[in-house]
This record gives sequence, C-alpha cells and structure tokens, in this order.
Amino acid sequence: MVKEIFEHKTIRKYKEQQIPENILNEILTAAIRASNTGNMQVYSIIATTDNEIKKQLAPAHFNQLMVTEAPVVLTFCADFNRFNLWCKFRNAEPCYDNFLSFMTAATDAIIAAQNACLEAENHGIGICYLGTAIYNADKIIETLKLPIGVVPVAVVTMGYPCENPELLDRLPLEAVVHKETYKNYTEDDINRLYAEKENRDDSKQFIFENNKQTLAQVFTDVRYPKNNNEYFSDVLLKVLKQQKFL
Amino acid sequence: MVKEIFEHKTIRKYKEQQIPENILNEILTAAIRASNTGNMQVYSIIATTDNEIKKQLAPAHFNQLMVTEAPVVLTFCADFNRFNLWCKFRNAEPCYDNFLSFMTAATDAIIAAQNACLEAENHGIGICYLGTAIYNADKIIETLKLPIGVVPVAVVTMGYPCENPELLDRLPLEAVVHKETYKNYTEDDINRLYAEKENRDDSKQFIFENNKQTLAQVFTDVRYPKNNNEYFSDVLLKVLKQQKFL
Repeated sequence: MVKEIFEHKTIRKYKEQQIPENILNEILTAAIRASNTGNMQVYSIIATTDNEIKKQLAPAHFNQLMVTEAPVVLTFCADFNRFNLWCKFRNAEPCYDNFLSFMTAATDAIIAAQNACLEAENHGIGICYLGTAIYNADKIIETLKLPIGVVPVAVVTMGYPCENPELLDRLPLEAVVHKETYKNYTEDDINRLYAEKENRDDSKQFIFENNKQTLAQVFTDVRYPKNNNEYFSDVLLKVLKQQKFL
Repeated sequence: MVKEIFEHKTIRKYKEQQIPENILNEILTAAIRASNTGNMQVYSIIATTDNEIKKQLAPAHFNQLMVTEAPVVLTFCADFNRFNLWCKFRNAEPCYDNFLSFMTAATDAIIAAQNACLEAENHGIGICYLGTAIYNADKIIETLKLPIGVVPVAVVTMGYPCENPELLDRLPLEAVVHKETYKNYTEDDINRLYAEKENRDDSKQFIFENNKQTLAQVFTDVRYPKNNNEYFSDVLLKVLKQQKFL
C-alpha cells in the first residue's frame, strides 16, 4: 500500500518554512521518472519560488491565497517547444502542431505532476492542485513567458502544512468502476450511489449556505456554472490555437 | 522517497497469473483517492479482464500484445455522464458539454490512473500505459459501450512481470525544469541537454535500424509522423464533438 496515496489530503495553508533545495530536487526528479510517451518527455515544469513572480501569477489563479503563501508553485506544461527545437537542429521536420500532440504532452505532464505530489507528501509537504491552470492559461503563459508549443495544464502549490483537514469523502468504488464494459446508470443507481454524499452534514450545510434545494444545484448554479464554463472553454481553445496545437 | 516512483519500469510481458480481486480493488481504491476537481469525481474506470472483450479491444490498440496478454486492462475515462444524470435527477441543469469540462475530467482521470499504477507496482504488478487510448478513442467507445459524455483518455495494462528491463534514461533535470519562468533553449543548450541521450548505444542502434541520420528523424519520420498525427487528431476532435464536449 502506498501510504501517501491513501493519506492524501489537499493542504491550502502552509507554514512560512521553505522547502530545502535538495528536497525540491527530489520532488522534481520523481516527476521526470514518470511514464511518458515514447520517452520524448514533452513537458516542462516551472518551479516558481520568487515572491514577486508568485504575486504576478496570483490573478491567473483568481487570487487564491495558496499561490502567494506557498513557498513553491509548480506549473506543469505540455511542451513540444524543446522537442521541436531538437528536431530542427537535427535535420528533422517536427509535425506536432496538432491536437493529438497536445493531448499526448498534456497527459505526460499530468502524470509527472502526480508523481511530484506523492513524493512531496512523502517528505511531509502538503499539496494543492489548482484547477485554474486551464482557466487562465493565457495569463499564465504571459507571466511565465511560455513560448509557442507550451501550454500549462496543471498547477500545484506546495509547502509544509499549517492545517490538518479530514480525509475527503469519495463515491463508493462501484460508482466509478465498471466491470468489463460501461454500465449506464438508472435513477435508482444514482440515488443509491450519491446517497452517502448527499446525507453528509457538510453537504446539507453547503445547500443551506448557497440557498439551493439540492447539492447538484450548488455545482451547476454556483461552483461551476454555464457562463463560466463556456467563457473559459473559449479562452482555452484560443490558447491552443495561439500556441499552435489547433 | 516513494520507491515505486523511482523504481518504475514499463512492463509489457506478463505471467499468466491473475491479479486477485482484493488487490485489484485496492488498486482501484488508490485511484479514487486521487485529487480531483471539486470532489466531483468526473471520471470512470473500466476494468476489463474478460478475454473476449480484451480481444475486441486489441485493434483499437494496434493489436499490441499487452492488451490480450495482460490479465487486466484499465481504461480511464473523462466522464460527465454520471454527474449529468445526477444533476438531472436533482432538478439541476448540467452545463458540462464544453471543452473546459472535458479537460477537467481528463485531468482528473489521468491523476487517478497514475495512483492506480503506483499502487499496482507496490504489489509487484507491472504496468504499461498505452498511448493509443487517444488515437482510437472512437473504437474504444464502441467496444466498451461508452455513452455521450464519456471519453477514454488513458489505458493501462497490468500483470505480474515476465521481464525485467533496465530503468529508462531521462533528460537531465535542468532540461525539463525552469526556475521562476521559462527560459528558452539556445542551440548550445539543446546540444548539451540531448548529448547523453544521443550518445547512448541504443540510440545509435535505433538510428541504424531505421536507416536515418539522426535520432530526431526516427521520431519525426518513423515513430510519430505527420500523417498519423494529423489523421488521429481529426479522429479525436470528432470524438469530442460526438461525445458532446465540443
């Protein structure tokens, strides 16, 4: 049993304590050991520790405090720029300005990110993934000076924990796992599989605080609403065009 | 140090030995403990062990032997179908038929996949990621009966190892990691960072066998050529439209 996996909690509050360079290097080395497509390693990791640059990054992450308070912000990017340069200097014609190549590079970057997170947790360091990596990719590109062929896909803040939240609930395994082929869900299935989640006190509190009738409405109307999803989808597709992946 | 991360080797040859159900369940539980967006868990895992269905899956993975020889094939899917059904049965209007939602769900599915791989390796089980997950998503959708809102993004074969390859080489850390912001590469940088890789005996053998002048040409002309990338990009974009994410 990999204990870091089963003990994982998202940590949003950090001590001021810095992450020593040798430990940060071990975390980054864990990242680059990850499985990747054809051993091309078509991703880059931007390790930001400078307070001024973290401050510049913050708006791209909707000014969530983790970005300025964490000693380290890691931005994992799909990156064909380095590979393309290598090709050009080696009399080879790169052909990775397409969506498949973006998904290949993004997948490899995300696998590397999860290795980094588990290795950090092994050293007692807390981590938080920021979904905003793909919301405001345009702003991150500007701040981190990412060239054509490079797109951020996962951002993780890291630091020594200053909080100790409870393990989060999960849907039962049978909600997520399908045996052999996909079995679609009946209304009874959905009722059964979501019952525990819906009956939690924190879920009820969440509905009450947001003045909604159901937990699902908190997601559709408040947390991940249509206008946001559609707006940021357009931004992300524009970014893929701008960075030459579409 | 998470030893599974540093000792990871891709395993393509497996013993006939099955993976016991309790161990497979622990691997799947490791997957669902992973960080995910808003704890929505918008992914599904299809665990295929049936020989007949593995045979049907094989062509989608270019008939790589791992698919039929591995005791377990896990297909990790971006999945908003379950969440959308929950919303509909709870008087909420889902709004996740867009590209941002696909990327959110795909990211969460890939993070879960990497947890499953490391937990499998903890139990002495070998794993292999198949890049073909996103090449032939249309065929996988058909075989595994994936409904609208579900797209495969990572496929992993698992089994007890019947080979023990060497650890693969990686680019030096400084090739992949940028401090503070992205530093673009000069020709000298590329020469220095790729020197070790290019000077390896297996790289030279690879160039010779493929009748090329440089290692980069093996990638651009043989392994990941333009016509393939463009063809499968089109297929994948069509799949995203068909599954209502574009």
